[in-house]
Amino acid sequence: MKAFEVVGNFGFENLRRVELPEPNAGPGQVVVRVRAVSLNYRDLVVIKGGYGPRQKLPLIPLSDGAGEVSAVGTGVKRVKVGDRVMGCFAPAWQEGPVTQEKVDSSLGCYVDGVLTEQVLFSEDALLPIPAHLSFDEAATLPCAALTAWNALFVADHLQPGATVVVQGTGGVSLFALQFARMAGARVIATSSSDLKLTRARDLGASAGINYKTTPDWDKEVRKLTDGRGADHIVEVGGAGTFNRSLGCVRLGGMISMIGVLAGASAEVRTTLILFRAVRVQGIFVGSRAMFEDMNRAISAHRLQPVLDRVFPFEEAPAALRHLESGAHFGKVVISI
Amino acid sequence: MKAFEVVGNFGFENLRRVELPEPNAGPGQVVVRVRAVSLNYRDLVVIKGGYGPRQKLPLIPLSDGAGEVSAVGTGVKRVKVGDRVMGCFAPAWQEGPVTQEKVDSSLGCYVDGVLTEQVLFSEDALLPIPAHLSFDEAATLPCAALTAWNALFVADHLQPGATVVVQGTGGVSLFALQFARMAGARVIATSSSDLKLTRARDLGASAGINYKTTPDWDKEVRKLTDGRGADHIVEVGGAGTFNRSLGCVRLGGMISMIGVLAGASAEVRTTLILFRAVRVQGIFVGSRAMFEDMNRAISAHRLQPVLDRVFPFEEAPAALRHLESGAHFGKVVISI
Amino acid sequence: MKAFEVVGNFGFENLRRVELPEPNAGPGQVVVRVRAVSLNYRDLVVIKGGYGPRQKLPLIPLSDGAGEVSAVGTGVKRVKVGDRVMGCFAPAWQEGPVTQEKVDSSLGCYVDGVLTEQVLFSEDALLPIPAHLSFDEAATLPCAALTAWNALFVADHLQPGATVVVQGTGGVSLFALQFARMAGARVIATSSSDLKLTRARDLGASAGINYKTTPDWDKEVRKLTDGRGADHIVEVGGAGTFNRSLGCVRLGGMISMIGVLAGASAEVRTTLILFRAVRVQGIFVGSRAMFEDMNRAISAHRLQPVLDRVFPFEEAPAALRHLESGAHFGKVVISI
Amino acid sequence: MKAFEVVGNFGFENLRRVELPEPNAGPGQVVVRVRAVSLNYRDLVVIKGGYGPRQKLPLIPLSDGAGEVSAVGTGVKRVKVGDRVMGCFAPAWQEGPVTQEKVDSSLGCYVDGVLTEQVLFSEDALLPIPAHLSFDEAATLPCAALTAWNALFVADHLQPGATVVVQGTGGVSLFALQFARMAGARVIATSSSDLKLTRARDLGASAGINYKTTPDWDKEVRKLTDGRGADHIVEVGGAGTFNRSLGCVRLGGMISMIGVLAGASAEVRTTLILFRAVRVQGIFVGSRAMFEDMNRAISAHRLQPVLDRVFPFEEAPAALRHLESGAHFGKVVISI
Repeated sequence: MKAFEVVGNFGFENLRRVELPEPNAGPGQVVVRVRAVSLNYRDLVVIKGGYGPRQKLPLIPLSDGAGEVSAVGTGVKRVKVGDRVMGCFAPAWQEGPVTQEKVDSSLGCYVDGVLTEQVLFSEDALLPIPAHLSFDEAATLPCAALTAWNALFVADHLQPGATVVVQGTGGVSLFALQFARMAGARVIATSSSDLKLTRARDLGASAGINYKTTPDWDKEVRKLTDGRGADHIVEVGGAGTFNRSLGCVRLGGMISMIGVLAGASAEVRTTLILFRAVRVQGIFVGSRAMFEDMNRAISAHRLQPVLDRVFPFEEAPAALRHLESGAHFGKVVISI
Repeated sequence: MKAFEVVGNFGFENLRRVELPEPNAGPGQVVVRVRAVSLNYRDLVVIKGGYGPRQKLPLIPLSDGAGEVSAVGTGVKRVKVGDRVMGCFAPAWQEGPVTQEKVDSSLGCYVDGVLTEQVLFSEDALLPIPAHLSFDEAATLPCAALTAWNALFVADHLQPGATVVVQGTGGVSLFALQFARMAGARVIATSSSDLKLTRARDLGASAGINYKTTPDWDKEVRKLTDGRGADHIVEVGGAGTFNRSLGCVRLGGMISMIGVLAGASAEVRTTLILFRAVRVQGIFVGSRAMFEDMNRAISAHRLQPVLDRVFPFEEAPAALRHLESGAHFGKVVISI
Repeated sequence: MKAFEVVGNFGFENLRRVELPEPNAGPGQVVVRVRAVSLNYRDLVVIKGGYGPRQKLPLIPLSDGAGEVSAVGTGVKRVKVGDRVMGCFAPAWQEGPVTQEKVDSSLGCYVDGVLTEQVLFSEDALLPIPAHLSFDEAATLPCAALTAWNALFVADHLQPGATVVVQGTGGVSLFALQFARMAGARVIATSSSDLKLTRARDLGASAGINYKTTPDWDKEVRKLTDGRGADHIVEVGGAGTFNRSLGCVRLGGMISMIGVLAGASAEVRTTLILFRAVRVQGIFVGSRAMFEDMNRAISAHRLQPVLDRVFPFEEAPAALRHLESGAHFGKVVISI
Repeated sequence: MKAFEVVGNFGFENLRRVELPEPNAGPGQVVVRVRAVSLNYRDLVVIKGGYGPRQKLPLIPLSDGAGEVSAVGTGVKRVKVGDRVMGCFAPAWQEGPVTQEKVDSSLGCYVDGVLTEQVLFSEDALLPIPAHLSFDEAATLPCAALTAWNALFVADHLQPGATVVVQGTGGVSLFALQFARMAGARVIATSSSDLKLTRARDLGASAGINYKTTPDWDKEVRKLTDGRGADHIVEVGGAGTFNRSLGCVRLGGMISMIGVLAGASAEVRTTLILFRAVRVQGIFVGSRAMFEDMNRAISAHRLQPVLDRVFPFEEAPAALRHLESGAHFGKVVISI
């Protein structure tokens, strides 16, 4: 089967198209014919070797895939050949709180991922694709959508009428926008592009702030919330934006830390955490159980993931470079 | 000023139209010119003296009113003359968990209520009416809407995609229906009338069950949820329906007890509570803080309360009898 | 190997000592040489066939066992031969909320239990015995202790200084007493025996109420809490005591339903649930993850389970009859 | 009456002993004859004007006082002359979540505090002193103890057997140590002094780490928790220690931010918040309702606050300098 692997050394230049033997399904295992994968910022870090010495080569990168069951091992009960399925981001994380073992099972980092024609899964790591979604759309859910879901509905308990701030227009931010709307919340989006803000409004954002032309966007958020501040801020920018988030979250509000776009550490106004009684919570994707809850909501609302662009399998490297450019609005997908 | 009082003995026949002196606003107090009041099932119990020996006569009944500020005492900061306001159901319950003192402050039971032209409030007991609502509509919020809000979003943390069962088409049930929809949940409504079920569907219910023609409605709920059961059941029927609710709530799901329609006690299948790991929670209206959160959501969604019928002040007794008949769909209001 | 089975028909008289083939450990499986088992009230119901048509015969009853690992299958990583281990009550309930599948995996009801010399477990279903505990003591933990833990620390969040009521002096009640004390709470115990109340006080209860001589024990609890009521009531009596529990729980307090001693249904004063804003929650034992947390606490505090009496294997029927008599104080154990 | 005021300019040198008119109790108000006050690090910041332009002069500093009711205004019901009482840190924070209005009511910052012989309180701002405590001891509770309580039992839900790290041996840290022990948790204390660590062990800490001789104290915490990390870290050091706290909190664990000892901002390893799924929560003292819960626990356990040293009223400046030196173990008190 065809696959992409990082070979020899880390770095984009070492991402090679290779021919690998097809997997066989052992007891409880399932072979999935991958039909689409989606990209996350994390994949760029992985390919560069940014997750440290525990990363081994060669490595098939990417975590999020959707496809059809092509073979099942003995004892498999949850799926059958032909089923349309998505894989879990962290197969060992079935439910309950996160543990190191669950984190380490994440695909496409310390273990092989899904940028390949066929992937071997434990049957527990697969979920049915909501009926209204294509493979391309379903491939966007395992990491980005689930992270947004976890942030808003597990780590936090968003009430209708609450105000959510989403930063930028990457995958997690747009899912957070759509989920927040689904739950009856107001959304304020930030971006460096007025065009993207217009599209965010089309998706249901009630306001957009261009952080290039309004660098004090935290003050603008305060204005838009009658001085109260936002109830929940989905912090994707990491270091660069965290102090702004602290500047516009309401007293007792929540900042969910989901992104590492802007570096590993940052100068943080720690006293604001204290005086605003803020909750900051790191969000590491989510469990299979959360994924099931999310799918129920996605199906009930016939939610359409926002696809930025779909690349053919051969152009996987171009897809990754497109993501890196930051030009996207929504998810970048590779059709296989 | 004109008012209705229960005089001499409890009972509908003792509800008299009386002339009372106008109230004066002391320090921190506010006089409200009442423009509309709404009825709750509780008012019927109150007028019959059903809340025990602590009920004193004469008593101005009813708890839910909306109107205009007509006078303010010294030191009042939160409102000014002319403001459109609603009164809190339990003025002493500003925030935090419920206490006996807060319960006892409920209007129209142990203390005088709002079936009168003017009412004296502490300034803390008043909230601004959402801009899109009339007095008649605003008068429906203090008890029924807040009870539904508390059940779904404070006692429980409803997620999008969850399934909520609402029983009947009284005030609390329809607000629960509307709020659940606002939060992205599915709603199954029950009623003895197909016509009312049609109207419930028009309000967003995805299914309706006629419990007369389908007495085993709990089984029908299970079917409609693929055997899983409902996530949340708003139990208004009390004794008569509780075992059915136990029969169709999902494992670990919640039954919020809000109603006393069917008697003070009931034969309950307690083992089902255990084996289904059910949460049953009594909901006693809610606090001013919850009311503020609810109003923010109502304003953001321009939610329209469902008015069954508006009676003129003189016909207050007829309005109460109409409520008692159970023929209503939504709230019964008296315009003053 | 020797075992007890219910054979032919349900009922104590059909509990037979039998000789069965020894189990073999398949992949991921572990054979445990059982050294002690403990009894729960549920076992009496099981043997009588009280859990309905899904119960099949022959059946090895009992759910709670402790012993040594005598053999491990391929791929087993969590335990090795010679390890001292306890089995999980519901092996499929590793973590997260309860589901039907997890409930159905409970030992000694729809599947064989532990009243036998050797039991085959999945490696996931075993936990190490705290170092300070004997096999007899460890055998008391899987059901009774975990139920009490779940009630106080998962379903509820007990604060130091809170007041907990425990009913009677069976296994769950005494574990609840000990755990509540460990967490800094006050405990009020009820019993029909002054002698047992004295022993409960020796274990840390600050007060005891004889419900025979003080049938209005709910009023006594109110007195002992300055009229406030208890924060948490561990309801083991089921039907017979539930209204008393409603009578003495504080506003907004919690009643955890853990027992079925007194019948499948009961006349419940449902209005009290409403007006006291009570939380009633069914507690179905608990997950492996809760068991791990509990063991950490038991080890840190060197908690000693209260053993009523230890019977030899041959006298298993006598042990069951002893439990049925209600004469016990703490756990009834069978040493194998 | 005698008092200390910061006069003219901020700074210790401007803390003057002054003679002020005695307060009179208006309606709902209470005059308290202050018998003891305690110091918090915050008071040092206040006196230097560190809380910004909203601080006005002259100002009576300090927030925590205990004394006797010497006069009551009309309508006061909660206390009577002669009652032993403590004042709330933030009188407007009766219950519910924190708001700006509640924060701004904190004593001794934007409004006058308690370093004076008599203080005027609203009756709602007073709580009875637990019977076993002296005025000196009671004066330590309003800020430091309540902050520790809020962190462990409101913001978090500490289970028995959990591990708590407390940093240093100031007031909040020692209360956190004592409260955590009361709730059945293990405590690891850090300090730069072996002598203080010995005293912390005497108070119940199971381990102490000297961060001078073991600068990688986070690794030591990991070792002491079998690699798992601590469940809760009471972060008092602010900037300087936050990354260490991130280094030793367990996955999904909590860091409560309560201190500002080390500056207004810090370089924070934000990715660790994400990958460890950490909850960071700012703790701003607490409400009257939390204070009541805490007192119930303090009384039940006859908890003894740790007094470092009691200064006479005249030596208030020396007391403040003593606190500033960091030499203290527990609370610094001024007897009036």
